[in-house]
Amino acid sequence: MSIENKAPGKDISEEDLLDKFPLAAKKHSDHRSQFEICGVTFGGDLVPVFAGPNMVESEELIVNTAKAVKSHGAHFLRGGAFKPLSFPYRSEKYTETRETGLKWLQTAKEEANIPIITEVMEEQFVDLVAETADIIQIGARNMQNYPLLTRIAKTGKPIMLKRHFGCSLRDWLGAAEYILVEGNEKLILCERGVSAPHTHRSSSRFLLDLQVVPAAQEITHLPIVTDPSHATFWRKWVKPMALASVAAGADGVMLEVHPDPENAAVDPLQPINFEAFGQLMNDMELVANAVGRHIK
Amino acid sequence: MSIENKAPGKDISEEDLLDKFPLAAKKHSDHRSQFEICGVTFGGDLVPVFAGPNMVESEELIVNTAKAVKSHGAHFLRGGAFKPLSFPYRSEKYTETRETGLKWLQTAKEEANIPIITEVMEEQFVDLVAETADIIQIGARNMQNYPLLTRIAKTGKPIMLKRHFGCSLRDWLGAAEYILVEGNEKLILCERGVSAPHTHRSSSRFLLDLQVVPAAQEITHLPIVTDPSHATFWRKWVKPMALASVAAGADGVMLEVHPDPENAAVDPLQPINFEAFGQLMNDMELVANAVGRHIK
Amino acid sequence: MSIENKAPGKDISEEDLLDKFPLAAKKHSDHRSQFEICGVTFGGDLVPVFAGPNMVESEELIVNTAKAVKSHGAHFLRGGAFKPLSFPYRSEKYTETRETGLKWLQTAKEEANIPIITEVMEEQFVDLVAETADIIQIGARNMQNYPLLTRIAKTGKPIMLKRHFGCSLRDWLGAAEYILVEGNEKLILCERGVSAPHTHRSSSRFLLDLQVVPAAQEITHLPIVTDPSHATFWRKWVKPMALASVAAGADGVMLEVHPDPENAAVDPLQPINFEAFGQLMNDMELVANAVGRHIK
Amino acid sequence: MSIENKAPGKDISEEDLLDKFPLAAKKHSDHRSQFEICGVTFGGDLVPVFAGPNMVESEELIVNTAKAVKSHGAHFLRGGAFKPLSFPYRSEKYTETRETGLKWLQTAKEEANIPIITEVMEEQFVDLVAETADIIQIGARNMQNYPLLTRIAKTGKPIMLKRHFGCSLRDWLGAAEYILVEGNEKLILCERGVSAPHTHRSSSRFLLDLQVVPAAQEITHLPIVTDPSHATFWRKWVKPMALASVAAGADGVMLEVHPDPENAAVDPLQPINFEAFGQLMNDMELVANAVGRHIK
Repeated sequence: MSIENKAPGKDISEEDLLDKFPLAAKKHSDHRSQFEICGVTFGGDLVPVFAGPNMVESEELIVNTAKAVKSHGAHFLRGGAFKPLSFPYRSEKYTETRETGLKWLQTAKEEANIPIITEVMEEQFVDLVAETADIIQIGARNMQNYPLLTRIAKTGKPIMLKRHFGCSLRDWLGAAEYILVEGNEKLILCERGVSAPHTHRSSSRFLLDLQVVPAAQEITHLPIVTDPSHATFWRKWVKPMALASVAAGADGVMLEVHPDPENAAVDPLQPINFEAFGQLMNDMELVANAVGRHIK
Repeated sequence: MSIENKAPGKDISEEDLLDKFPLAAKKHSDHRSQFEICGVTFGGDLVPVFAGPNMVESEELIVNTAKAVKSHGAHFLRGGAFKPLSFPYRSEKYTETRETGLKWLQTAKEEANIPIITEVMEEQFVDLVAETADIIQIGARNMQNYPLLTRIAKTGKPIMLKRHFGCSLRDWLGAAEYILVEGNEKLILCERGVSAPHTHRSSSRFLLDLQVVPAAQEITHLPIVTDPSHATFWRKWVKPMALASVAAGADGVMLEVHPDPENAAVDPLQPINFEAFGQLMNDMELVANAVGRHIK
Repeated sequence: MSIENKAPGKDISEEDLLDKFPLAAKKHSDHRSQFEICGVTFGGDLVPVFAGPNMVESEELIVNTAKAVKSHGAHFLRGGAFKPLSFPYRSEKYTETRETGLKWLQTAKEEANIPIITEVMEEQFVDLVAETADIIQIGARNMQNYPLLTRIAKTGKPIMLKRHFGCSLRDWLGAAEYILVEGNEKLILCERGVSAPHTHRSSSRFLLDLQVVPAAQEITHLPIVTDPSHATFWRKWVKPMALASVAAGADGVMLEVHPDPENAAVDPLQPINFEAFGQLMNDMELVANAVGRHIK
Repeated sequence: MSIENKAPGKDISEEDLLDKFPLAAKKHSDHRSQFEICGVTFGGDLVPVFAGPNMVESEELIVNTAKAVKSHGAHFLRGGAFKPLSFPYRSEKYTETRETGLKWLQTAKEEANIPIITEVMEEQFVDLVAETADIIQIGARNMQNYPLLTRIAKTGKPIMLKRHFGCSLRDWLGAAEYILVEGNEKLILCERGVSAPHTHRSSSRFLLDLQVVPAAQEITHLPIVTDPSHATFWRKWVKPMALASVAAGADGVMLEVHPDPENAAVDPLQPINFEAFGQLMNDMELVANAVGRHIK
C-alpha cells in the first residue's frame, strides 16, 4: 500500500482499542453511551450546556450567575472553588475560596435549582467536593494524575475529564480507562484546546481541536464536550467556536460566563456576560436544530 | 499587567497590521471585502461551495462530477490538472493530465455551466491556466513562493490562497499582501489544516484550524474558506468539519467529491461521493441558515 | 520596534520572573545554583550521569546494572519501582515491583555503593520512597500535580522535576517554584522530549528540546539535565543526543541502560547495553572536556 | 506487537524509502555520500562551516566579513543578495542588493579567496546566481517549490536544501529527491528550526531539531548541516546549539556573522561578531575532535 493512500495515523489500532481501552472503546459502530445526571441526558439528542464563572469569587456572584444562566437554559452551573494556578503565588484578587466557595456553590444550587460541576485537585478534598458537586471535574493538568482519577472514580459521582493541552486522544482514552475500570460509567470527555504553534493570538494559549470530536466519536462511546472559553482565551472567538462545536457534533458545551467579565478575578479576556450568553444559547439552539439536536 | 490577564498573543500587533499588512488589514471593525466571481458573491451572506475531485482524471470523470455537484448546488468545480506530489515519481494511476486536463475542465465548465477553480504551480503555465480557471488556486506548498504569487496576481484573475500547514496567520497575511499589492483584490484565503502533534489518526496528516476563521476575520477583510477534505484526509470526518466550518463563520467551503471515492487516483480515503455531497449540501444549508447565512 | 527585530518570545518577561518565579529566577546573570547530593556536585563543572533500567524488574537485574553502571562511572542509579502507564492494564511482563522493587533498589545501592534516583507518583508512597531514594523523581505526567510536588518537597529530599511533553518552560518553572517555595533547594530540572509534529520516527514519541537548555540557563539558576532515552525512544539516537546534550551545556544526562535491551520488560527499543554505556561515558567525557567540563 | 513496544513512527517505511526516495535512501547502513566542493570535502570527517551576514548590505561589509571569517577558518562565505521577506514592503534599511550584491559577493570571493553560498528564489535569476555561487542555497520557504528545485538542479551546481519549518523529514527527502533525480548529486540538507509550541522565547521563532540529524543519517546518505542562527534567532543560544550540532554528528554548521550585529540591517538579535565567531570556531574544533571529526 502506498503512503499516499494509507490510513491517516496508526496512533490507535483496532488491536490497541481492544487491548488497552476495552471499556472506552465502542462495541459496535453505533455504540454510544447514554446516561442521566440530575435529569439531564448525556449522549442523546440534547446538547447540555455548562455555564458559569471561572472562579467562585463570592456568594453574590455565584448565586446571581446561577440564576442568570439557569434562566437562559444552562443545564449545569460551573465554577471553581479550588483552582490550579501555574505558579504558587496568589494575588489579592485571585483567591481560591475553597471550602467557603463550595458552600456558596451549594447555596447557588439550591437558590437557582441548577446542578453543579466543579473541580477537585487533591485527594484530601475529593469527598468534600463530592458532597456538593453533581459532576466532578478533572482539570487538564491532572489528566494523567492516575491515582487522583482512581480516587475520584471511586466516589461513584459523574465525572468530566478534561484533555491536557499536550496530550493525544490515545493518552486521553487511557486516562478515561482508569476511571471506567473502577466501574464508574458516567464519564464525559472535555476538549479545551491544544498547544499548537500556528494560530494568531495563541502564542501563550490554545487551539480548540474540533477534529477530535469526530475522531473520538469514531472509536469511543463516551460523550465529548468542548470548552471554547478556555481554548480561545479570547471573548470574541467564543461564539464562533461554540457554534462550530455544536455543528461538529459535540455532546455538550462548557462556557465561561461572568456578570462583569472585564473585572473577573482571573482571565478577564475570556468570559462572556449574561446577555451574550443568552444570545449564544439561542444561536446554539438554532445550530443544534440544524444538525438534528437541541439545547433547550 | 499580569501574565494571566494579558491579551493572548502578540503575533500581530496593531502596529504590524498597519505597517506590514496595510492592504490585508481591516480599516474598521466592520470592514469586510465583498466581490463577485462569475456571479457568485464572496464576503456576503452566501457561503459558496467548491466541489470536485482532487485530480482531473479523465474527461468523463470531470464532466460527470461537474454536472453532479452543480445539480446539488455547488458554485465552483474544483479539480487539479496540475498537482504537486511530495516526491518526483508518478505511479501509473497517478498521472497529472496537465494541458489535457485543462481542456477537460473547459469542457466540464461548458457542459455543466459551472465556473472553475484549479491550481497552477509554475510560472510557465500561469497564462494557460488563467484561460480556463475562473479562480486560480495557489496550493499550500507554494504559499511562500512570492514570485509565483506576484506572477499570478498580475493576471488579474481571482485567487484562492491556501495556507501552508506549517505557517501562522501572520505568514499567511504576508503572502496575501504580496497579491494585494499588485492591485488584485479578488483574493480568498483557504485554511486546509495545520500539522499538529495531538490528534488521533493525524500522525501523517493535518488538523483543521477552525479558530483561525474568527482570528482572521478579526484583523482582515478578506473572505476565508476552509477545506475539510484535505485537512482531515478521512472521509468520515469531512461532514462534521464542514458543518463546523459553516457554523464558525467560514466564508466558503471546499470539498473533495468523486463519483467512486474508493477508486480515486489519489487520496481515496478522502473524497465523498455524489450522494453524500448532496446530503451535506442540505445539512450545510441548515447550519448556514442557523447562523444567518445561506448556501443555496 | 518592528516585528522582524523584536526579541523572540514574550512568554516570560523580566517582570514575570520577579513576580511569578522569584525563587527559580536568577538573581544576576552569573547566578547558578550549586549543591551536593551524596557527594556529587550539581551546577558545577561536573556533568553527573544517571543510568539504569526503566523498571526495577528483578533484584538480580538491578544489582547487576548498578554494579555495571557504577564501574563505568555513573553517579546515580535510576530505576522505577513505581511506573506510570498510560492505561490501567498490566501485561504479565510489565509489572511494577513497587515496595519489593524499592527493597531491591536498596540492595543495589548497598552492594554497588551508588546513590539512587527513583520516581514516586502517589502521596501515600512518598515517605516510603524517600527512605531509599537519594533523589526523588517527579515524572512528566505529574509535573503539574502541584499537591504531589508540595508533598514531595516537604520531605526535604533532593528532587528531579521532569518536564511534561506538552509544557512550556514557563509552565515548568511554575512547577519548580511550587517546590522551591517549600524551602527545598536541591532541585534539578530534566528535559525528556516534547511532542512535536515534525520528526521522522517520532509520530508517537518525542523530540528532545535541546534549545531549552540555554533558554533555561538564561533565566533560572537551577541545573538542567536531559534524558535522551525517553525523548528519542530509539536506541540508535541516544548517543548523538547524549553527546549533543553535553555540548549544549546540560548539567547532567539520564540514560536508560539494561543488561539485555531487546528483552526489557518495557520500551525495549530504547535502552542501551552495558558495553554501549561504557563507550558512551568515554565519548561524553571527551565532549565534556571540550566544553570545559567533566563527567568522570 | 504491543503499542508500548512498537517502533516509534511509521512516517517512512522501508518500502517507502525504496519506492519514493530511491536516490536519497541509503543503499546499505554505512552508505554516506562524499563529495568535494571547491576543495572542501562533505560527508567525511571534516565539518565545514558556512559563515557570513544574513544580507549582503554593502561591498565593504561583505569583503571585510569574508576576510574575517576566512581568517578564522570558515570554509564558505554565506550572504544573501536576494532575500525573502514575509511581506512585500522593504524598509530603507532592509534592501535587497540583488545583482549588485552578487557582484560584491564575487569581489569578496576573490579578495578573501573563499567560496560562496547564496540563495536564489526565482527561476529568472538562477543562471545569474550560478555564476557567482559555489553552492546555491534553496531557502526554507521554497523547499516545496519543486519547479524551482528542478531548475536549480539542472545548473549542475552544488545545492544546499533548507528544511521548511513546518515540514517533516519525509517532506524534506521528497524535495531532495526532486533534485537528485536531475542527476545533481552534490546536495546538502540544512536543518534551520521547526515551529514548535513549547520553548521559551520561541513564540514567533523556531526550535532547532537536532534529533533530525541522526534521524536523517539513519536513512539517507546525504550530508546534513544545521543553522543555529536562524533557528534560535537569539545570539546567546547560537554557541550552545552550534556545539550541540557538532556533537550530534552534523556534517556542517551555518552561522550568521556580522561585524556589528546590533546594527545588522535585518534580524540584529541573531548574528555573532567576528571575535565570538573566532572563539566559537575554536570551541567547535574541540567538540569535533571529541567526536572524531575536525573543523580546521
